[in-house]
Amino acid sequence: MREDHQDAIRRVDETRLWQRHAQMAQIGAIPGNGVNRAAFSTEDIRARRLLVSWAEARNFEVSMDGIGNVFVRRPGLEPNAAPVLSGSHMDSQPRGGRFDGIYGVLAALEAIEAIDEAGVKTRRSIELVAWSNEEGGRFSPCTMGSAVYTGAKTLGEVAGAQDNDGVVLRDALAETLAALPHVRKREFNAPAAAYIEAHIEQGPLLELEGKTIGVVTGIQGLRWFNVEVFGETAHAGTTPLRVRKDAVRAAVAVIQALAEHIRDPDDIVRFTVGRMLVTPNSSNSVASHVLFSVDLRHPDLATVQQLGESVAEIARQAAAPCTVKITPTLHDDPCTFDASVVASIENAAGRLGLAHMRLPSGASHDAMYMSRVCPTGMIFVPCEKGVSHNEAENATPGDLAAGARVLTATLLDLASR
Amino acid sequence: MREDHQDAIRRVDETRLWQRHAQMAQIGAIPGNGVNRAAFSTEDIRARRLLVSWAEARNFEVSMDGIGNVFVRRPGLEPNAAPVLSGSHMDSQPRGGRFDGIYGVLAALEAIEAIDEAGVKTRRSIELVAWSNEEGGRFSPCTMGSAVYTGAKTLGEVAGAQDNDGVVLRDALAETLAALPHVRKREFNAPAAAYIEAHIEQGPLLELEGKTIGVVTGIQGLRWFNVEVFGETAHAGTTPLRVRKDAVRAAVAVIQALAEHIRDPDDIVRFTVGRMLVTPNSSNSVASHVLFSVDLRHPDLATVQQLGESVAEIARQAAAPCTVKITPTLHDDPCTFDASVVASIENAAGRLGLAHMRLPSGASHDAMYMSRVCPTGMIFVPCEKGVSHNEAENATPGDLAAGARVLTATLLDLASR
Repeated sequence: MREDHQDAIRRVDETRLWQRHAQMAQIGAIPGNGVNRAAFSTEDIRARRLLVSWAEARNFEVSMDGIGNVFVRRPGLEPNAAPVLSGSHMDSQPRGGRFDGIYGVLAALEAIEAIDEAGVKTRRSIELVAWSNEEGGRFSPCTMGSAVYTGAKTLGEVAGAQDNDGVVLRDALAETLAALPHVRKREFNAPAAAYIEAHIEQGPLLELEGKTIGVVTGIQGLRWFNVEVFGETAHAGTTPLRVRKDAVRAAVAVIQALAEHIRDPDDIVRFTVGRMLVTPNSSNSVASHVLFSVDLRHPDLATVQQLGESVAEIARQAAAPCTVKITPTLHDDPCTFDASVVASIENAAGRLGLAHMRLPSGASHDAMYMSRVCPTGMIFVPCEKGVSHNEAENATPGDLAAGARVLTATLLDLASR
Repeated sequence: MREDHQDAIRRVDETRLWQRHAQMAQIGAIPGNGVNRAAFSTEDIRARRLLVSWAEARNFEVSMDGIGNVFVRRPGLEPNAAPVLSGSHMDSQPRGGRFDGIYGVLAALEAIEAIDEAGVKTRRSIELVAWSNEEGGRFSPCTMGSAVYTGAKTLGEVAGAQDNDGVVLRDALAETLAALPHVRKREFNAPAAAYIEAHIEQGPLLELEGKTIGVVTGIQGLRWFNVEVFGETAHAGTTPLRVRKDAVRAAVAVIQALAEHIRDPDDIVRFTVGRMLVTPNSSNSVASHVLFSVDLRHPDLATVQQLGESVAEIARQAAAPCTVKITPTLHDDPCTFDASVVASIENAAGRLGLAHMRLPSGASHDAMYMSRVCPTGMIFVPCEKGVSHNEAENATPGDLAAGARVLTATLLDLASR
């Protein structure tokens, strides 16, 4: 590795990175060590101002696009070459944690500061990006900033979204943009050489496997369904089992059959029935109706398609003598990250001597939309017991810094190309 | 069979019996051909007056005890010999049908009228009884009239029960007793030679088997439990299945394991999971808690005991890695009807050439309490698709009359002993 690159990586400052997390966590702090920082809220504006103040203190160029995505640029030797982007989001779930999203923003800031302190001249510019409204907790849908930036959605399509108090996104966004009047405006979807997002894993795999770095191979696809089972209510004491159309028993059989069908020795398939509603839900009446959710995910397109397509027939067969109705409720195909970006992250982790593993992302991220417009990758660091979207979300200063070092090395690699 | 007994059975009048059902169904009629005749209500008092008017038109002796049970007596040759009792109840579920309970009362009236018209002299008196508050739909608990009559409960124990409007049973009962001031008072628990209750099956077995008469062998025992499964919530996209503690999957496994354990080739065991509550009940969160009900019934004491005792261990094993908590919520041992009464009913059905079968009662009846104080049996007739506790409850005039004929023959047999 180049001497100046090594210097930059050494300058990643665990304490500074940790303290910035603590400062950000004060904005929208809620009991239990959590954060409530809704998109385009007063707290969101405060977080943007704090980020911009750190960037301006270093004389980085700050800009903002029409959906409020914030960009912080460290220029490269070839200012007209497409930059390498890195970031995540600063908004949170209503009862969110101190690391989800904000880590990727602060890790990118740490990386460009460390690179700047080391005086490294990169060929390409490096840009931090803080995406607007990734969580979708206040205004639906989620990953809105990257969707609009990349053109997957238009600003007009999302501007009418309302929060639970009837506030329209258009107005909240206008306030947010007006709150940072000195920040330069920028266009959507400027060319990008690559995009890297650092994030807490939000799952337990790294902790379970004793790894510090997750080299993310893509974002898995998902299929959601509501399965309705139609039976007939009957007296629990008098009705022989052979003549029943018991919707609970049928639902149980369907769930077991689906579980059998998706059984995966590699434990990659995610299959969850998290919601069940029974009618009439009386202990001495045979159930006439059950509605339950099916959440199926897999990183491989063909697999997630096959799994999704199998649900209706398996449910129909297993539910007999009850009948079923299957309603698809969500449908996302997997994205696969760029092989050279994945290799760059993996090499960086290896050169830094960090225990690492490849894994797909179970949750969705802005990297999904970015992967459609440029070579993209993600770096995961462990979070305690995999807990996320929860005040108890936790990560260690050492792991966060390790991820920032891998990010720094990867950005230097990609910005040199 | 004695000529006069044959004459009495011939005098059972299908049309009269059906028309009396229709008259009673007008008292508390609700849309959909149903009946709402709550215990000790205005409708209940009207039903009592109608019954008493029919009894007095025939010069039968009418009496009423302290809980409002109505007795109609046709004296036998030996007035001091313990009488044979037959009846059921006149109250209904809030959305009840036209046959549940009232059929047993009207069949007993039809029997003693037919016997009277035939001029049969029986050794023992025959008494119709209309039990108060069998349903428990307004005042809990159910089968109250027979419980108090037989001494299983005291009047003081039940008198404080309140309905949903805060009316106290003591007051509603006092109004009911005062509404029939000319009716003679009688004591609880006078000696009885036998008790026979005719009832619609409230299940589908007779219809399924093509039988007109059910010779009831007893009332099955039951065990009710709440099973709670404790897991851990987790992200449906990120958490590998092998590390989950998924309360829905564990509950499904427990229900399947219980169903396997109770599998009964004779289809006598009743096993129902009618109620399920999932927490947090979100489609993309692994469930942390499931509560479900278990309703287990069987006519045999040892079997119902064994089944009940097996629940906790089966649930504990099948739920792993989740944990379970089992809470018993109801516990009734089976009652077995008197062999000679069962044989008398069976012989009567046979002699009348009616297709019949032995079966246990899935639901509870006043016959349960009576079986503790005298030889007891029950006669079932089919109801359409087994539907009961429902406005759609239905039975045919021919089946109702057939049951009344079997009842008449049985009463004549037992009253001759």
